[in-house]
Amino acid sequence: MVKIRMDIENIESKKIKFNLDTGFSPNQCSKKRMLSDMEGMYNNIKEYRNILQKGDKIVYEFHDLDINQRSAELCYGTTVVYPGKVGDEYYMTKGHFHEVLDTAEVYYSLKGQGILLMENIDGRIEIQEMEPGDSVYVPPGFAHRSINISKNEPFITFFVYRADAGHDYKTIENKGFRKLVIERNGTPTIIDNPNWNNK
Amino acid sequence: MVKIRMDIENIESKKIKFNLDTGFSPNQCSKKRMLSDMEGMYNNIKEYRNILQKGDKIVYEFHDLDINQRSAELCYGTTVVYPGKVGDEYYMTKGHFHEVLDTAEVYYSLKGQGILLMENIDGRIEIQEMEPGDSVYVPPGFAHRSINISKNEPFITFFVYRADAGHDYKTIENKGFRKLVIERNGTPTIIDNPNWNNK
Repeated sequence: MVKIRMDIENIESKKIKFNLDTGFSPNQCSKKRMLSDMEGMYNNIKEYRNILQKGDKIVYEFHDLDINQRSAELCYGTTVVYPGKVGDEYYMTKGHFHEVLDTAEVYYSLKGQGILLMENIDGRIEIQEMEPGDSVYVPPGFAHRSINISKNEPFITFFVYRADAGHDYKTIENKGFRKLVIERNGTPTIIDNPNWNNK
Repeated sequence: MVKIRMDIENIESKKIKFNLDTGFSPNQCSKKRMLSDMEGMYNNIKEYRNILQKGDKIVYEFHDLDINQRSAELCYGTTVVYPGKVGDEYYMTKGHFHEVLDTAEVYYSLKGQGILLMENIDGRIEIQEMEPGDSVYVPPGFAHRSINISKNEPFITFFVYRADAGHDYKTIENKGFRKLVIERNGTPTIIDNPNWNNK
């Protein structure tokens, strides 16, 4: 880093490093979602429990910065979804709507191969594959889930949303997404969720 | 890219690639700011005109996507500031306030060495150096300018702000920033702008 001479006192502002290669920050903790936190999220419940019995694992982690929850402000950070599957279903985030439903989110992919699965309350589905350098705009009103479709690399994205948007996890926890992303004959494949809204 | 079998019709959503190494998009045009667009922005007017006489140059370019200007939505893209100086003052963006003053912005640095210079209407200054992987939060109310302090690399950032924020360029065009970033003995140095508010 270039050394700078400062002629100014009291310089302060928020700078946070998120390593472009790992997604991690040297000075910001990430929240970890373990496989045990994902109860009911995967279609193959038997396989989910089989894997858990052998020991818990991290499925993904993300940053949740302490930003004022005002519409003037923005929350941001990285999400790291690890490679893995439960049966034929890829490791993924829980996914959520925003509590303030009419708010968008921007994702920018730094590493790996992933899918952003989106659906709104009317059942409209949007699906975007992401490779490094792809930005995806999650339109207002769409629940969104990040899915890692690579075999051995983490899927890492930088995200930004309005700081008052909030998280509604419950709708997805109760209903699921209408679609699942599974591996079929070695290929990521979108199928209908046989258990959607069945709980 | 992994090939995906889609069982769904009408899949559409906004995906835009911004190359992590160059900042450029294969399918989105950038807006270019030429040296000739920067009349009055640099402190050394004589040197500015000397350079211009030898031929115009690109100082920076950025993306301005067609997003609904609603507070629910987000504008995003990349800015590429080229290396160079006018006299001892580094190449930089014009810098602006948001028209909706109480709106933040997030920058994420992809390449190069830069400075984000910020000031609010009360004269509070915030300055952040950025290297690849650094995010900087521009608090609501702060004008912001990106400055490339490297000798030979572009300074590339990914940015996100509320889509209704708007741009107030005029305040800075008329007054300038209170501080300048210049090279002194080979080192980026912050000094008072001798011509601040003198127009």
